[in-house]
Amino acid sequence: MLAPVINQYTKVCAIIVAAGKSRRMNGQDKIFAPLSGKPVLAWAGDTFQTCPAVSRIVLVLSEENMERGRQLARERGWSKVTEVVAGGIRRQDSVAAGLQYVKDCGWVIIHDGARPFITCELITQGLAAAGETGAAIAAVQVTDTIKSIKDDRIVEKTLPRQNLWRAQTPQIFRSDIISRAYREIKSEATDDASLVEQLGIRVKIFPGSYGNIKITTPADLALAQALSGEQGGDK
Amino acid sequence: MLAPVINQYTKVCAIIVAAGKSRRMNGQDKIFAPLSGKPVLAWAGDTFQTCPAVSRIVLVLSEENMERGRQLARERGWSKVTEVVAGGIRRQDSVAAGLQYVKDCGWVIIHDGARPFITCELITQGLAAAGETGAAIAAVQVTDTIKSIKDDRIVEKTLPRQNLWRAQTPQIFRSDIISRAYREIKSEATDDASLVEQLGIRVKIFPGSYGNIKITTPADLALAQALSGEQGGDK
Repeated sequence: MLAPVINQYTKVCAIIVAAGKSRRMNGQDKIFAPLSGKPVLAWAGDTFQTCPAVSRIVLVLSEENMERGRQLARERGWSKVTEVVAGGIRRQDSVAAGLQYVKDCGWVIIHDGARPFITCELITQGLAAAGETGAAIAAVQVTDTIKSIKDDRIVEKTLPRQNLWRAQTPQIFRSDIISRAYREIKSEATDDASLVEQLGIRVKIFPGSYGNIKITTPADLALAQALSGEQGGDK
Repeated sequence: MLAPVINQYTKVCAIIVAAGKSRRMNGQDKIFAPLSGKPVLAWAGDTFQTCPAVSRIVLVLSEENMERGRQLARERGWSKVTEVVAGGIRRQDSVAAGLQYVKDCGWVIIHDGARPFITCELITQGLAAAGETGAAIAAVQVTDTIKSIKDDRIVEKTLPRQNLWRAQTPQIFRSDIISRAYREIKSEATDDASLVEQLGIRVKIFPGSYGNIKITTPADLALAQALSGEQGGDK
């Protein structure tokens, strides 16, 4: 399968997925939580808006946040946002909803709205990596010691960690590949690439950043506050 | 192998390992970095000092920090600290140095000095878990999507994460087991339990805490500052 060249004739569309329930945030909606002067969602949104490689943005929000999302897009001048879409129960349902609106795009970038510190540089590097195989994901090397356990919570083994990476977003796919993955693979997935892997398509890793954190808990938000002075520099 | 009961006749000793070079801290020594009014090392030290289950503490520090460590122990009234020992190049060399001073102990608790938010409750739970098999480690379930990759940075597979745990410290061992592991197993190890696993001894997992972070980078120190108001509550 030949990956097409990414150039000015190939439309690159972003799906920002932010329809989660913020279950571990003690009642706070993480997507609209203030982070150094603007809502969490505005960080990724501003980056996609200003990054020249990106043509168009689809925002996937929970039903109750759609009006608030539209207002944010207006306030921040996100002219690239063409759709604000209601997500589903699971993350993959939300991505599937967004995919309906990128059928004219050559490439699709899927990004978690709760990862504020994505950079245009990371997007550009990801597009280059995706150009090699049709699918690429940001990831960082595992630094913890990882154990696999048996049912009775006895360690089965320590995994050799030199080949283990933690997946992040952005995850970038040729449009036909990610559409086919969502159409054909119906299993539960914790990221988009794992569906593509099940098609037998090679997924390339490109180096993300330890600063490219996902906000899941109030502690993550506190960490994001500390990092936001540096705009997610790899600290 | 029968694990002896842990009671008032069984001496429980702690080795606090803090001899690292703070390589990723931009020149700051993480062990003595201020964290809400006291040095990082004082957090774990205070907890072991005040936790009734612990009889004795061995501090393993870098050569250049030994005097500073002795002074900290005096200032904070750590009467349980019987030895301040010079560590080695690798973490496991430092643990081996500490193990020379716990030969009279029935149980050994190994803890990273860069994990400030250990609690006496965690220590007590760990001792109970270790009583079952002779070896137990604190760990938390993996929440990221983990990929194993091949040489060319192509994803080989997404690991099923439901049985994957991230090892933390404290790691708690029957004294004869950990001594034998360090004597017989000479391979590189990223934690103490992996040496014990190689002896074929069953290592039990007990739930650590997501707040029980290890300070490795300036961003971790910023997160610790945010968490320290809650003394490492599982946020």
